[in-house]
Amino acid sequence: MNGGRGEYAPRLYRSKGYGCEMTMNIAVAQSGGPTCAINASLAGVYKAGANSEKIDRILGSFNGIEGIIEERFTDLSEKLCDSVNYELLKRTPSAVLGSCRRKLPDYHENPEMYEQITASLRRNDIGMFFYIGGNDSMDTVAKYSAYLREKNISDIKIIGIPKTIDNDLCETDHSPGFGSAAKYVCSTIQEITRDSNVYSIPSVTIVEAMGRHAGWLAASSCCIRYNGESAPHLIYLPETTFSIEKFLADVKKQMKLHKAVIVVVSEGVKTAEGKFAAEEFQSGQIDSFGHAYLSGIGKFLEKLVAAEIGCKVRSIELNVMQRCSSHIASQEDINSAEAIGEAAVDAALEGKSGCMMTFVRDGSRPYSYHIGTADAAKAANSEKMFPIEWINAEGNDVSDEALYYFLPLIQGEVMPIMNNGMPTHLVIE
Amino acid sequence: MNGGRGEYAPRLYRSKGYGCEMTMNIAVAQSGGPTCAINASLAGVYKAGANSEKIDRILGSFNGIEGIIEERFTDLSEKLCDSVNYELLKRTPSAVLGSCRRKLPDYHENPEMYEQITASLRRNDIGMFFYIGGNDSMDTVAKYSAYLREKNISDIKIIGIPKTIDNDLCETDHSPGFGSAAKYVCSTIQEITRDSNVYSIPSVTIVEAMGRHAGWLAASSCCIRYNGESAPHLIYLPETTFSIEKFLADVKKQMKLHKAVIVVVSEGVKTAEGKFAAEEFQSGQIDSFGHAYLSGIGKFLEKLVAAEIGCKVRSIELNVMQRCSSHIASQEDINSAEAIGEAAVDAALEGKSGCMMTFVRDGSRPYSYHIGTADAAKAANSEKMFPIEWINAEGNDVSDEALYYFLPLIQGEVMPIMNNGMPTHLVIE
Repeated sequence: MNGGRGEYAPRLYRSKGYGCEMTMNIAVAQSGGPTCAINASLAGVYKAGANSEKIDRILGSFNGIEGIIEERFTDLSEKLCDSVNYELLKRTPSAVLGSCRRKLPDYHENPEMYEQITASLRRNDIGMFFYIGGNDSMDTVAKYSAYLREKNISDIKIIGIPKTIDNDLCETDHSPGFGSAAKYVCSTIQEITRDSNVYSIPSVTIVEAMGRHAGWLAASSCCIRYNGESAPHLIYLPETTFSIEKFLADVKKQMKLHKAVIVVVSEGVKTAEGKFAAEEFQSGQIDSFGHAYLSGIGKFLEKLVAAEIGCKVRSIELNVMQRCSSHIASQEDINSAEAIGEAAVDAALEGKSGCMMTFVRDGSRPYSYHIGTADAAKAANSEKMFPIEWINAEGNDVSDEALYYFLPLIQGEVMPIMNNGMPTHLVIE
Repeated sequence: MNGGRGEYAPRLYRSKGYGCEMTMNIAVAQSGGPTCAINASLAGVYKAGANSEKIDRILGSFNGIEGIIEERFTDLSEKLCDSVNYELLKRTPSAVLGSCRRKLPDYHENPEMYEQITASLRRNDIGMFFYIGGNDSMDTVAKYSAYLREKNISDIKIIGIPKTIDNDLCETDHSPGFGSAAKYVCSTIQEITRDSNVYSIPSVTIVEAMGRHAGWLAASSCCIRYNGESAPHLIYLPETTFSIEKFLADVKKQMKLHKAVIVVVSEGVKTAEGKFAAEEFQSGQIDSFGHAYLSGIGKFLEKLVAAEIGCKVRSIELNVMQRCSSHIASQEDINSAEAIGEAAVDAALEGKSGCMMTFVRDGSRPYSYHIGTADAAKAANSEKMFPIEWINAEGNDVSDEALYYFLPLIQGEVMPIMNNGMPTHLVIE
């Protein structure tokens, strides 16, 4: 223990409630794929913790649950009591405490890790643990809270705070991180649309968005029509069957209507057999190293259009820029990510545990929501798909209902704090 | 004629100098690959034209020189006399008048196109033609002005206004469009650096930047070190020889120093034989359609690292986002692009022709420049390479001198005018 970064030496830190028996420390960690909003939720936990008289130190655990087990903590007040740093944190993409991909084993088969976590929390006087993450993190919340119940441990609370750019977490209207990713996707596809219209010859542009199983991000690109664009002209999601023949027919049809056809496709579109189209269509292809080679579906479709239609065509993979472009983050996303972090602390102080914080939408036009809670076990290990009823009969577009769902989530900007012409980020090591 | 978009019906337009014999119309067109700043130069031409008593109508020609030949014009005052539209134009990526890839033939072999251009300019009372573009456009400026001289035509002026994200135009310190592309590259690689550092396991991230022959854009990523980043850890440019063995050795060395190694590579890096590395290394590879298949150099290097080092690795192609991400444009770039457009009109009014407007740097720290002119023929058909003396001996990094060259060009932000959470663009059809 204590060998990694962020070595924790409790004796060094000032204590807000020094000598008071009623206070406790809390811990917060981040897990899974990074987003633009996961640090805003961390900020929210810190803010509510710093404002509570019942809470002493707010400890950040490095690399998710790994940091708890290995007691790699940092006292967040050292960095975040500075209000500029607090604002920087909200504007810093990725996970400032680092992340992990570790799932808890079944308690009855392997109790050791549970006991390590409990021992670490006890040693550091941690009465509440907030885990910001996706399905796997909610699985950890569910399993560890079940363990706490079984052991009749009532003075440790664990609460999950959702995050994912894929928006596939169940039980919540949407997940922090998704709104900023969608805002990037929309803004960038609108700019790509300008770029694509520059020549007088017909062309096809294929944009590949993230979404291995759920098509939310690709679908969100429909919002640009609200700004008067005719694009995207075709949208393909993993929730329907993808066929090469139908795709080519769709593209040819759109080429009669538009000089520059813009296609948005989820990375995870599937064949009729339910297999990933990118893998199925390229099976047997070998790279220069003799290994099976798969390009993404976008690049595959580019080659398909070149071979079968023969027009000017290109593909663009939005790649990790979808999840890390904090410079164009959604204000709605960042602010609500912070708010749900604060609400998690309030919920734990009210005695809740084993739950995931949720957004409950009260209305879309005008947009309003409140924050609730759901059983973390229900959110873990299942995925919220894009609704089939929001996909058109042809399986190549989404409805206005989808647009009105997405639109509130991408509103407002969080201006980056620029330094030397580039964004400034907060780094905690 | 008059069959395309933007049909020009002169009789409909109000005339600033109606009845005055002294006024003339001017024409402006855009050519080559789109950038974030080419519309700002168009705005500058419009502004100076609208402010001059010697100039009547300011005609935009659609699709570059093609619009001149086919007389597809639009009266820019119809859109741009509205100051909001004028600001929107400066914030709209790509070329609002469309572009073309047409080069003029040699006059003595094929005079017809020259005569068509002249006839069109005469018919529309155009005394000055401003062509915003790269090498090919400067070639057009040089050839057409030589024709004008040969024909003793002195009442038509033609002036080139530089633009290219590749920054490879000779005779000018830098080209409009490059600064915004570099700002995108820097900001995005800084965000990717955050994203790459999230896990505790070692990883390599390879970012492919545009630059087929000149490495300016990839090199500009060095600026993020000025914000305290250790990344990028390796930078490879087309100006030096790229070798697989050296690359692998470099990466292994950096992996000992950094958990998350960030590599930036120009798309056009070359082998010792001067061939494109991406093509050489993948020769013989066939795609699923039986065609020769080339991935970009980034994807190739990703596969190489996976095969030879076996660590977590990914590649990211910044693609057209480098040239169309107006939402993070450089204020310095946009403002100076506008200024050089204005200066072009002034130069033509002073009687200049056959030249390209240039930026002349007076100093880097503090940054200052003035606008000059150069013979368009000198700028055409040659490329300004990244200076060898700014590349380290190992050929895998650039110097602080490079950093101080780049830094002024990415300063300041031009806030997009947002609508419904997405940028607003001006469209002229």
